[in-house]
Amino acid sequence: MSVAFEVFRGSKEGKIVADTTTRTLGPNEVYIETTHSGLCGTDEHYLKSGIVLGHEGVGIVRQIGPNVNNVKAGDRVGFGYTHYVCGTCEKCLTGWDQYCENKKEYGTHDHDVGSLSGGAVWDAGCVVPIPEGYESADAAPLMCAGATVWTCLTEYGVRPTDRVGVMGIGGLGHLAIKLASAMGCHVVVFSSSEAKREEAFSFGASEYHVFRAGQELKDCKPVNHLLLCGSANVDYSSLIPLMDIHGSIYPLTVDFAPSPVPLLYMNVKGIRIQGSLVASRQSLRSLVQFAADKKIVPTSMQFPLTQEGVEEAMETLRQGKMRYRGVLVR
Amino acid sequence: MSVAFEVFRGSKEGKIVADTTTRTLGPNEVYIETTHSGLCGTDEHYLKSGIVLGHEGVGIVRQIGPNVNNVKAGDRVGFGYTHYVCGTCEKCLTGWDQYCENKKEYGTHDHDVGSLSGGAVWDAGCVVPIPEGYESADAAPLMCAGATVWTCLTEYGVRPTDRVGVMGIGGLGHLAIKLASAMGCHVVVFSSSEAKREEAFSFGASEYHVFRAGQELKDCKPVNHLLLCGSANVDYSSLIPLMDIHGSIYPLTVDFAPSPVPLLYMNVKGIRIQGSLVASRQSLRSLVQFAADKKIVPTSMQFPLTQEGVEEAMETLRQGKMRYRGVLVR
Repeated sequence: MSVAFEVFRGSKEGKIVADTTTRTLGPNEVYIETTHSGLCGTDEHYLKSGIVLGHEGVGIVRQIGPNVNNVKAGDRVGFGYTHYVCGTCEKCLTGWDQYCENKKEYGTHDHDVGSLSGGAVWDAGCVVPIPEGYESADAAPLMCAGATVWTCLTEYGVRPTDRVGVMGIGGLGHLAIKLASAMGCHVVVFSSSEAKREEAFSFGASEYHVFRAGQELKDCKPVNHLLLCGSANVDYSSLIPLMDIHGSIYPLTVDFAPSPVPLLYMNVKGIRIQGSLVASRQSLRSLVQFAADKKIVPTSMQFPLTQEGVEEAMETLRQGKMRYRGVLVR
Repeated sequence: MSVAFEVFRGSKEGKIVADTTTRTLGPNEVYIETTHSGLCGTDEHYLKSGIVLGHEGVGIVRQIGPNVNNVKAGDRVGFGYTHYVCGTCEKCLTGWDQYCENKKEYGTHDHDVGSLSGGAVWDAGCVVPIPEGYESADAAPLMCAGATVWTCLTEYGVRPTDRVGVMGIGGLGHLAIKLASAMGCHVVVFSSSEAKREEAFSFGASEYHVFRAGQELKDCKPVNHLLLCGSANVDYSSLIPLMDIHGSIYPLTVDFAPSPVPLLYMNVKGIRIQGSLVASRQSLRSLVQFAADKKIVPTSMQFPLTQEGVEEAMETLRQGKMRYRGVLVR
């Protein structure tokens, strides 16, 4: 069973290139006609690699392999960071399948698979059914941006009585505010300027503090959890005074280079830094259901899913003008 | 009620000075005649500050204030890092009283209180009864070295089926091996040389690897927890390959300066760095009981609790020749 579809790749020159690729559907795979794709900062990292971009996809299942029984043609599904997990290794068996020992994922495995495309061939075990009535354009950014903050908010002990800090309001941060607020948490936003104050409150924030590295914040009670969703160049020493005893820091936006971390002061306050990678399959399902139930939608800007549309969206992201996630629509 | 007792302080010149101090016993305080004190690297840090040194004490209660009802004269107790906690703040109420908002602790509060002494005045709420039959010389190093590794081993999810790494075999590391092994864990020791291999196995280690920063270890399955008990100058990037998915690193020996930490790779593997500070009062009690029940004793070298004895012990520690904790005995 062979399918041909359009894809958008980056190129060495940094331009978006339209291409057509042909794939044979494996017995456990489905062919999804892409209708929507979110745009992530990671796509910019891979821009010159030549791979098909995009890992926040939503589309309609059009063909299924002979062994597939969890979805059928016509189903609306999300497909994100992970193409394949084995389902049998220790990580899969314990519900942490985003760390599957045999996984295939965005950017590292199949250079012809991505959501900035007319379609994609995906392992049926890694697609997420989208609840009826929840818009595809809203579901797309949940596949990576939403998934990334959702794991921090649900897998590491955040409680509804906690003060949850969100530093940086962008694709991840604005969803963290909306989700944590819907979980009952007291959301404390740290931003480098006043610009997003009103919008942050409309997302569900309870406090808004202008904060820059090296600054001391008065009148801000410490937070129990802090999601770093903004610049990767965080001064970790500046964060310590913001944290409560046993607080957790989630460094979601990070550089390749190591960051200086004041471990002595982490010991003094019993602070942890918790690494976290997108979400497990079950966590993704619980996220789309929670978002549908609570009517939580990303705040997004739409662009046509064409070569020009992708370039315009990437330029908007580059200029820091995306409010707050770009969604490409076919 | 006034008591006078001998104490040993450091001095600007780095010499140990014998002194006598007089204290009035508060209503909730006890006077402990010191019989034993462990020696910790932290004492070296405070050597030139002029404070009374020592925070791994064991002794006999000789006087009690009018409000004290949890211990009586003649009781044998341990007294360590913390002189006083309030018992009423959020941290005390949740069992994390080592982070008490009103605590008084070694080196920061009362410069006349320490276990390198003939006696000490202590809040009755912060002394630890020593189980009958467990030697005072063995109990002393549990008050800080033992307490520090015990919290990591018991409060952050270590399971008996886990592979627990211990890097660096000294005062903390050798106790971590003994305790983790008694908890059923598979203990994996990382040391910079072959020198301590046999001894590590005698302490309960299951594996021993010579490991130096920048080195790649073959044939070493990743560990779930890694206690850093050796040099503070750890290359965190070298540690990532040693860690299993969701592994936890406990940086127990740290510098004042921040350390470069490869946060991106922590995210890729879902690794956390967990800050931790000695132990709560209940945790200390459970430690001495566990050690007594399982007949776990520190491997130590004894010195007389005199000016010359303290100086000799400190010099032994400085030269890296302590095997593995120094205990001063009156």
